[in-house]
Amino acid sequence: MNAKYAIGLDYGTNSVRALVVDVADGHELAAAVWIYEHGNQGVVLGHDPNLARQHPADYLVGAEVTIKDALAIAHKRVPGFAPDQVIGIGVDTTGSTPMPVDTDGVPLCFQEKFADNPAALAWLWKDHTGYREAAEITQLASEIRPQYLAKIGGTYSSEWFYSKILHCLRTAPEVFDAAYSWIELSDFVPAAMTGTLHPDTFVAGICAAGHKAMYSKDWGGYPDKEFLSKLDAKLGALLGRLTPRVKAVDSAVGGLSKDWAGKTGLKEGIPVAVGAFDCHLGAIGAGVKPGVLVKIIGTSTCDITVKVNTDKLADVPGVCGVVDGSVLPGYFGLEAGQSAVGDIFNWFVSYIQPGGEQKLSHVELTNDADKLKPGESGLMALDWNNGNRTVLVDQRLTGLLVGHTLYTTPAEIYRALVEATAFGALTIINRFEEYGVKIDEVINCGGIAEKNAFVMQLYADVTGRPMKISRSAQTPALGSAIAAAVVAKAHPDFATAIAAMTGLKDKVYQPDPEAHAVYKELYKIYSTLHDAFGTKAWQGSLYGVMKTLMDIRDKVRK
Amino acid sequence: MNAKYAIGLDYGTNSVRALVVDVADGHELAAAVWIYEHGNQGVVLGHDPNLARQHPADYLVGAEVTIKDALAIAHKRVPGFAPDQVIGIGVDTTGSTPMPVDTDGVPLCFQEKFADNPAALAWLWKDHTGYREAAEITQLASEIRPQYLAKIGGTYSSEWFYSKILHCLRTAPEVFDAAYSWIELSDFVPAAMTGTLHPDTFVAGICAAGHKAMYSKDWGGYPDKEFLSKLDAKLGALLGRLTPRVKAVDSAVGGLSKDWAGKTGLKEGIPVAVGAFDCHLGAIGAGVKPGVLVKIIGTSTCDITVKVNTDKLADVPGVCGVVDGSVLPGYFGLEAGQSAVGDIFNWFVSYIQPGGEQKLSHVELTNDADKLKPGESGLMALDWNNGNRTVLVDQRLTGLLVGHTLYTTPAEIYRALVEATAFGALTIINRFEEYGVKIDEVINCGGIAEKNAFVMQLYADVTGRPMKISRSAQTPALGSAIAAAVVAKAHPDFATAIAAMTGLKDKVYQPDPEAHAVYKELYKIYSTLHDAFGTKAWQGSLYGVMKTLMDIRDKVRK
Repeated sequence: MNAKYAIGLDYGTNSVRALVVDVADGHELAAAVWIYEHGNQGVVLGHDPNLARQHPADYLVGAEVTIKDALAIAHKRVPGFAPDQVIGIGVDTTGSTPMPVDTDGVPLCFQEKFADNPAALAWLWKDHTGYREAAEITQLASEIRPQYLAKIGGTYSSEWFYSKILHCLRTAPEVFDAAYSWIELSDFVPAAMTGTLHPDTFVAGICAAGHKAMYSKDWGGYPDKEFLSKLDAKLGALLGRLTPRVKAVDSAVGGLSKDWAGKTGLKEGIPVAVGAFDCHLGAIGAGVKPGVLVKIIGTSTCDITVKVNTDKLADVPGVCGVVDGSVLPGYFGLEAGQSAVGDIFNWFVSYIQPGGEQKLSHVELTNDADKLKPGESGLMALDWNNGNRTVLVDQRLTGLLVGHTLYTTPAEIYRALVEATAFGALTIINRFEEYGVKIDEVINCGGIAEKNAFVMQLYADVTGRPMKISRSAQTPALGSAIAAAVVAKAHPDFATAIAAMTGLKDKVYQPDPEAHAVYKELYKIYSTLHDAFGTKAWQGSLYGVMKTLMDIRDKVRK
Repeated sequence: MNAKYAIGLDYGTNSVRALVVDVADGHELAAAVWIYEHGNQGVVLGHDPNLARQHPADYLVGAEVTIKDALAIAHKRVPGFAPDQVIGIGVDTTGSTPMPVDTDGVPLCFQEKFADNPAALAWLWKDHTGYREAAEITQLASEIRPQYLAKIGGTYSSEWFYSKILHCLRTAPEVFDAAYSWIELSDFVPAAMTGTLHPDTFVAGICAAGHKAMYSKDWGGYPDKEFLSKLDAKLGALLGRLTPRVKAVDSAVGGLSKDWAGKTGLKEGIPVAVGAFDCHLGAIGAGVKPGVLVKIIGTSTCDITVKVNTDKLADVPGVCGVVDGSVLPGYFGLEAGQSAVGDIFNWFVSYIQPGGEQKLSHVELTNDADKLKPGESGLMALDWNNGNRTVLVDQRLTGLLVGHTLYTTPAEIYRALVEATAFGALTIINRFEEYGVKIDEVINCGGIAEKNAFVMQLYADVTGRPMKISRSAQTPALGSAIAAAVVAKAHPDFATAIAAMTGLKDKVYQPDPEAHAVYKELYKIYSTLHDAFGTKAWQGSLYGVMKTLMDIRDKVRK
């Protein structure tokens, strides 16, 4: 029997990647990456620092270029490889990245009259222009639809679907009025490739709809008309033009269109799976299952776990999204995350640029930081330079550093920043467990997990848990390929496909008991600062914070 | 009539300076500086980072060298100048810098058997080895002698006289037992130059005794024997060997000895004034009087004001010292200070070394920081990298920075650090005024006041008060020369001498009302953080801190 392959398409913030995978064992034959052409590496910026948009043309060109390149590479590497052995395509993307479309489902920005209007572009996940609208949606929901908030951790984010659409309605009404509907990037690509963009055929993924558009079976789908109309009558009217077809990643949107088969050299009609967000399909590529937390660690993190949907599940406060079927069909998908991790280390190296003439690199700072003992610096940081996604869900929080003296060094600060992200990670794990979502195993993936043994060891020491690393270096694309394999029926279900196609690296970072003991003390301080600056209800004393850090420092240094 | 001159000797941490001054108008003819020879620029360090000692030989050699050099320079510059026109000498020093002495009043370290014993050296002001003893003294006083603490702001410091002596007693008993008594550097130099080191003749200054050795007329002198004996019976026994002759700077210790006249070329018998601490005589050199706060701003600050001693004066909590006659005879001397100011800026530039390959200097950071508007960075810092001297009197406090995002720059942090020291300065002024010590005028001196227009303007904007600058760049030495002029009877009293011999620069930094309005908002946040981390009794919420900083930032940026 000939080998069969699936393609995973992974849309990041700056580039798109196509990965060709053997559906039998998950072997990655070939990958190709293409950097978006518009704006600054794909991101169109504006005067307002909150604005971040993308041009959908980059999504279409990127798919074509990377699929063709990846197929060519596979052909070179694997004797006898032929594009018609590819049996399906899966797609993951950033999100919420919605765009306004016309009555044919085509993005408005392709019309000449909207070509120069940034509101007609795709509103990238990290566009925060709708932060006032987000607060308004949260406020209204807290008053009349608390059930909506319960599923999303208590706060509707400025990064999400309705915040962006409402902001467009208010600030660029000409675009809002010209739009028939709005669709997410993760739904746009599969629909475009299968010729199903038209509103009569368009299918949306439960991942984006559930996590960003408050779609839930519990209230029969999207938020009700009364609620949306109270925000704006036009938003209420839009409701009727959002697709009623909302499916999980075990469904195909359709078959690859003749047009796209011609462009790419793939077989016409092979199934294209329903799209989902990168971290959700990344969790699949890393081997998510009940009891497993997958941490995708890069500039920020996405933390994903699942729980069988026949279990009773309490709402988990501060966990951004709990959506039935958003990761795996038949399971609640639980999504948490840290708004900045690698971005904080990059800030210190790139913006503060420590080290003077021999400017210190990440590697040098890491080496020096690695030589320090836990608690030795007397420092403590909060990892909120980009707000806090979980468990506080508050973008108007900022960084904090405490404990520096006249002798504090850059490496000490660097280590404190890494520790802060580890304490943030522990806070998420604890919150899950407090609400009945047991975490037995942590699997890490993403650039930092791949490359940075110092960070991974420190995470093990702080959390007191072994840190495992996903075998694949590109788990979102692999997860998309797994979805493709499932919709192409190469495997009967996701559990079988995941077991066959994913794996772990041999290296496991085991917690050092002595380090963990110190970090338990330090975590108390982190929690105090976390609650003091991050919650309204906190009442307590910070008088001991600086002194306790010094006491621990003195003890450790002895 | 021939001109008459006075010499001020100013002992700093790393060097000693001699200044020749015209007693008629304060004109500074000549100055000479000598860097100490022992240790690292005069500071003998040890394995314990709290240890900092000096060798008294440096004090004697330094006086001889600098006086001779200064006289030679004066002779070159002023036709007809002759050393016999010098009518008196004044001395200021760091402190508390006590040293153990033998039955002749000679430092023990001059004995061969103690030559290599660091406990036999002078215990420099910034030696903190006695921090546990300081806590013990504070604790005992709070239990049985609260009146002692009331005069020193509530806490006895590890920098002070008995903390050091008690630590010597416990850790180097061979030195303690060999010592007949202990004397302060500010008393040692005048005694050595006048041949009055012997216990029968030795005179101590009220400045050191009052501020560091808890000497007060209110309880008949030094702390009582019962109190000291409870700390250690040997400390109680030492009490009888501390000199009963305690005087203010309007008295002479004696006349210049024949030996010293020979060494220096000065006239035998000219009066040498009672010594005092650098900041106290610095305040005199800057023109202190009731209603005037003199701020000596360098690596740290010393803030001095006076109040007529016939006034009723409440104890001022957190103000380290209130001593009758410590600055000017007939006035209470009130001493406050910040444990680090320039040292914090130096930490950022020298330890964090921001700016990468084009490492940013103080000048570059200042220029960039100067371009920012108040509140624009969204940052707030606490100025506690070296603890807090006033008003919290707590050396186990550390630095804090809050509000940084992924885009925070080195210049923004630098400005936040400068602002933090300004808020600290304002906190001291407010504390004085809350307790009935009115501040009508602020006169600044020291390196930063001299050279840094950015810092001075910012202090004016933060405090809402004009910042004036002392005419002299070496106010402690000038103040010592003024004391010399008074004891030599060139002026009838200090008020007359100060009026004649001190002055201000033309440039006055006026507060900008718009900037001050923003700083009033920011100071509320500083105060909240100050009280939250620095006081036991604080109860409140920090939930708004990061958000308010962002609100102010957004308002200012508009």
